[in-house]
Amino acid sequence: MEDEPSSRPAGRPRDPGVAARVLTAVQDLLITNGYAGTTIAAVAQAAGTGKAAVYRRWSGKADLVVAAVLALNAPVSVPDTGSLRDDLVECAMHYARGDERATRVLASLLSEIGHDPQLFDAANRAIGRPPVAALVAVIEQWVRRGAISADVPTELIAGIIPTAAFGSVTLRQRTLDTQTISDLVDHVLLPALTGAHGSSTQLL
Amino acid sequence: MEDEPSSRPAGRPRDPGVAARVLTAVQDLLITNGYAGTTIAAVAQAAGTGKAAVYRRWSGKADLVVAAVLALNAPVSVPDTGSLRDDLVECAMHYARGDERATRVLASLLSEIGHDPQLFDAANRAIGRPPVAALVAVIEQWVRRGAISADVPTELIAGIIPTAAFGSVTLRQRTLDTQTISDLVDHVLLPALTGAHGSSTQLL
Repeated sequence: MEDEPSSRPAGRPRDPGVAARVLTAVQDLLITNGYAGTTIAAVAQAAGTGKAAVYRRWSGKADLVVAAVLALNAPVSVPDTGSLRDDLVECAMHYARGDERATRVLASLLSEIGHDPQLFDAANRAIGRPPVAALVAVIEQWVRRGAISADVPTELIAGIIPTAAFGSVTLRQRTLDTQTISDLVDHVLLPALTGAHGSSTQLL
Repeated sequence: MEDEPSSRPAGRPRDPGVAARVLTAVQDLLITNGYAGTTIAAVAQAAGTGKAAVYRRWSGKADLVVAAVLALNAPVSVPDTGSLRDDLVECAMHYARGDERATRVLASLLSEIGHDPQLFDAANRAIGRPPVAALVAVIEQWVRRGAISADVPTELIAGIIPTAAFGSVTLRQRTLDTQTISDLVDHVLLPALTGAHGSSTQLL
């Protein structure tokens, strides 16, 4: 137990590693035990600290889970390869890269999200939105270049692969495979964006 | 309590209504209490029967939940309106028709489905598959008529709206709205199937 003692003198800096370990422990417990099985006591134990150290930073479980979800937020870069198809594939491959951690955390929260607007907002901002925003940015980049009509419903089309990835992880417990992603780009996204099918021989 | 008494004489027919009430109660409890909160005792009470009547028919909770899921299976008809777009819209509107009961039951089982192949299979056969199969049948009908190339990845494209509906119900607790469904048909399915966008003024 490397917790800060509750008698910590004023002015002594808190161990910044404790907060990170606690948030990682919350994510781990959500994935393995679900929301109901994620208790402050179990979190503290898994993080090698005490319940008091958790309550000093977060007001309770709801607050802690929101923080753990927001900590999953990782920026997704917007590729610019010179090819619309390659930009779309590179963006979409985010969903095949094995790091389904964020999606598994999201899946563990499904029973709660509908009843907790703050949690829904955190999950959307940290997990749902960043990769979709990168796909939207790719599409808008190619609208500016004239390859895609400005009338195309960008958000609707950008949401197809993220939604498929969510369904795959929550229902089948596995990330989208690279073949499905490139098929979706070639046979769904490109026709919807440009009217032309992609060639599946260009990549992979 | 209108249960059959446990001293029911041999040959007296069982009340066939009990089984239907029990399965409906399981579905209701899954939706409101989740999988963990669905106990045989609660099911029996909600169905107005006794635990013994439940155990006479099903070996336990896993068996009972599989039966309740299979009982959700409703055939989805394959429309034949004379227009590919209208056939697709009519099929897809299944997901806007307010009967999200099956999808809510499915959402309640997400924490279990990955660990229970029998439950996954039952959920897929009863909830996931029938509406997708109807969309596949519509597409195949129009492939035979020559309006769609036989090279099109039918299953992939037929899965787009069901997957969007699943994401909407599980994440946002609401069914897909009719505008999103017709936008998906016009701006995603039709371009992917035929290379041509649908006109959103044709319907709705």
